[in-house]
Amino acid sequence: MTDPRAERLAAVLVQYSTSIQPGDLVAIQGMPEAAPLLLAIYEEVLRAGGHPHLLVGLPGAEEAFFRLASDAQLEFVSPLNRLVIEQFDALISVRSDRNTRELSGIDPARQRRRSQAMSPLLKTYLQRGAAGELKWVATQYPTAAYAQEADMSLRDYEEFVYGACFCNGDNAVARWQEVHQRQQRLVEWLKGKREVRINGAYADLTLSIEGRVFINCDGRNNMPDGEIFTGPVEDSARGWVRFTYPAVTGGREVEGVELWFEDGRVVRATARKNEEYLLQMLEADPGARYLGEFAFGTNAGIRRFTKNILFDEKIGGSFHLALGAGYPETGSRNESAIHWDMICDMREGGEVWVDGELFYRDGEFVV
Amino acid sequence: MTDPRAERLAAVLVQYSTSIQPGDLVAIQGMPEAAPLLLAIYEEVLRAGGHPHLLVGLPGAEEAFFRLASDAQLEFVSPLNRLVIEQFDALISVRSDRNTRELSGIDPARQRRRSQAMSPLLKTYLQRGAAGELKWVATQYPTAAYAQEADMSLRDYEEFVYGACFCNGDNAVARWQEVHQRQQRLVEWLKGKREVRINGAYADLTLSIEGRVFINCDGRNNMPDGEIFTGPVEDSARGWVRFTYPAVTGGREVEGVELWFEDGRVVRATARKNEEYLLQMLEADPGARYLGEFAFGTNAGIRRFTKNILFDEKIGGSFHLALGAGYPETGSRNESAIHWDMICDMREGGEVWVDGELFYRDGEFVV
Repeated sequence: MTDPRAERLAAVLVQYSTSIQPGDLVAIQGMPEAAPLLLAIYEEVLRAGGHPHLLVGLPGAEEAFFRLASDAQLEFVSPLNRLVIEQFDALISVRSDRNTRELSGIDPARQRRRSQAMSPLLKTYLQRGAAGELKWVATQYPTAAYAQEADMSLRDYEEFVYGACFCNGDNAVARWQEVHQRQQRLVEWLKGKREVRINGAYADLTLSIEGRVFINCDGRNNMPDGEIFTGPVEDSARGWVRFTYPAVTGGREVEGVELWFEDGRVVRATARKNEEYLLQMLEADPGARYLGEFAFGTNAGIRRFTKNILFDEKIGGSFHLALGAGYPETGSRNESAIHWDMICDMREGGEVWVDGELFYRDGEFVV
Repeated sequence: MTDPRAERLAAVLVQYSTSIQPGDLVAIQGMPEAAPLLLAIYEEVLRAGGHPHLLVGLPGAEEAFFRLASDAQLEFVSPLNRLVIEQFDALISVRSDRNTRELSGIDPARQRRRSQAMSPLLKTYLQRGAAGELKWVATQYPTAAYAQEADMSLRDYEEFVYGACFCNGDNAVARWQEVHQRQQRLVEWLKGKREVRINGAYADLTLSIEGRVFINCDGRNNMPDGEIFTGPVEDSARGWVRFTYPAVTGGREVEGVELWFEDGRVVRATARKNEEYLLQMLEADPGARYLGEFAFGTNAGIRRFTKNILFDEKIGGSFHLALGAGYPETGSRNESAIHWDMICDMREGGEVWVDGELFYRDGEFVV
């Protein structure tokens, strides 16, 4: 018998996140590690009247590809990938690595070459997604590799993942509908507002959100989810912030990051550990010193940091900023090759004021 | 490290069976049970300059499909299947069941409905295959399920499978090139011949092969392989045969089958076990009482019967007949919904005469 939590997660992904309809062409992507969840999704899609297609990879294949492929092979875009991205109605991706460091030995230049070749298809994917033609959601199966990354036993990590997806109990779909409504009220309240001030032991920072849109991340594209975010006005940030959690990217952790902003730009940056890497990243391109995102994490089922951005950025009672590329749908115009999320816990004290009104205190919304 | 036998089998499939060329679109089908072989094939295709696509299923998905699918879902032909069959250059299928009885509880009518929906695509597959546009090969990974079916330990069964594919030693590709040449000489010798007479403790049977073509099964479409076959003239068989191995089909075994032919037609049939089933099958349609195939198995690496037609029909020193549908490329015109292979060991005595010349004795070709 399948873990009932995996069956509940499958129901959320198919009934709520992608809302599969009769006749929908549905791709289900993942690795054999996630077989119980993939199979539960497959069955849910059949019950919804859709046409499920399992696109299952094998551990080691991606590493073999990057190790062996010629330039022509690296740059080849398969008609099979095209078909799924250009014509399918839904794509349910289940992250399910057996080893999170599988590509450690691969030359990043080869990965970049591959990414460049795939970027037109990525653009189609995002465009069809924004137009509502392609429903997509990314989730994660609790594999031993992710548990290890989070310094947890597999059993505890399963509880953590399913808890974050509200799949430990029977009313998972209803819980996500509530998240949608609760966040929608916040997003509505923020419409037309101009200035955000973050205040506390870890920050004294002002941002403009004038003309910008907050997005309700309610479990349609990410599972778990629980976030509202926008792109701040590019030249507006001023002040200081110290991130309480390590900033993780490209397999590296930078601890104790502190940033100082003037006219939107990072003018000073320090870190307790791996400061050199932080400074390098800021030099990636001109946009790397500007903010692309400002967001609140709202998921009360995520209480701890696990070095995994799908979960960390949604920690209930945190806010995060991202250096680099913004999301155009927020109104952001910042462009960069990087998008680096850095997260700050507010549960132990801190306030956010919006246009002079107290909006958020000690990790809770107060409006 | 991958089992070197799986790496040799991958080399045979890619270098010899399908002869993958730079730029070829290659589908690699199988189940996660066969991951070591699938991955070795994936790497070989990359080395050959092809574009490998893993099409990996999950145990349980097919059963779930047949259990849950509506008629519309059963009859749906996916554009993804179409793409592979209509446009790919090669298809390497690795049978790799975790349970050979997985579909035991499924209503055969649902399977038939599915087969009917897929039959135009199957036709395209065979047509493109015959035209050399789609190179295809079917092989099998030694899973525990097949070992169990064969009454063998997994270790012994691996030896059996890789031995049958000549992959226990280093010169696997060269061995298959030799098979091609040896069988080609036999096929050439048989050209223009008219009459076959099988004689011995198990048979006294005469067939006409006038105007018919023998096909050299040299490892291009099956791995293992080792067979030459034709379709006998439909109304020519006369005499008697007793098959030394059980006739297996649809999960049933009929033991000790004996058939009597007059003017090509089975006029009497008996069996030691499951005779009733044999008689039922003969009533399937008019073509079911006529022969669609006459063949010699030539694979010296296959010495024993394992209830698996991919291997059994190639037992070195055996011949087999099939009741029902013939292969048009041989000249056969027999049509039927069934194609039931029945195998007879000739190693313990028996002769085959062709146009009055001794062609085969005690399991060996003598020309």
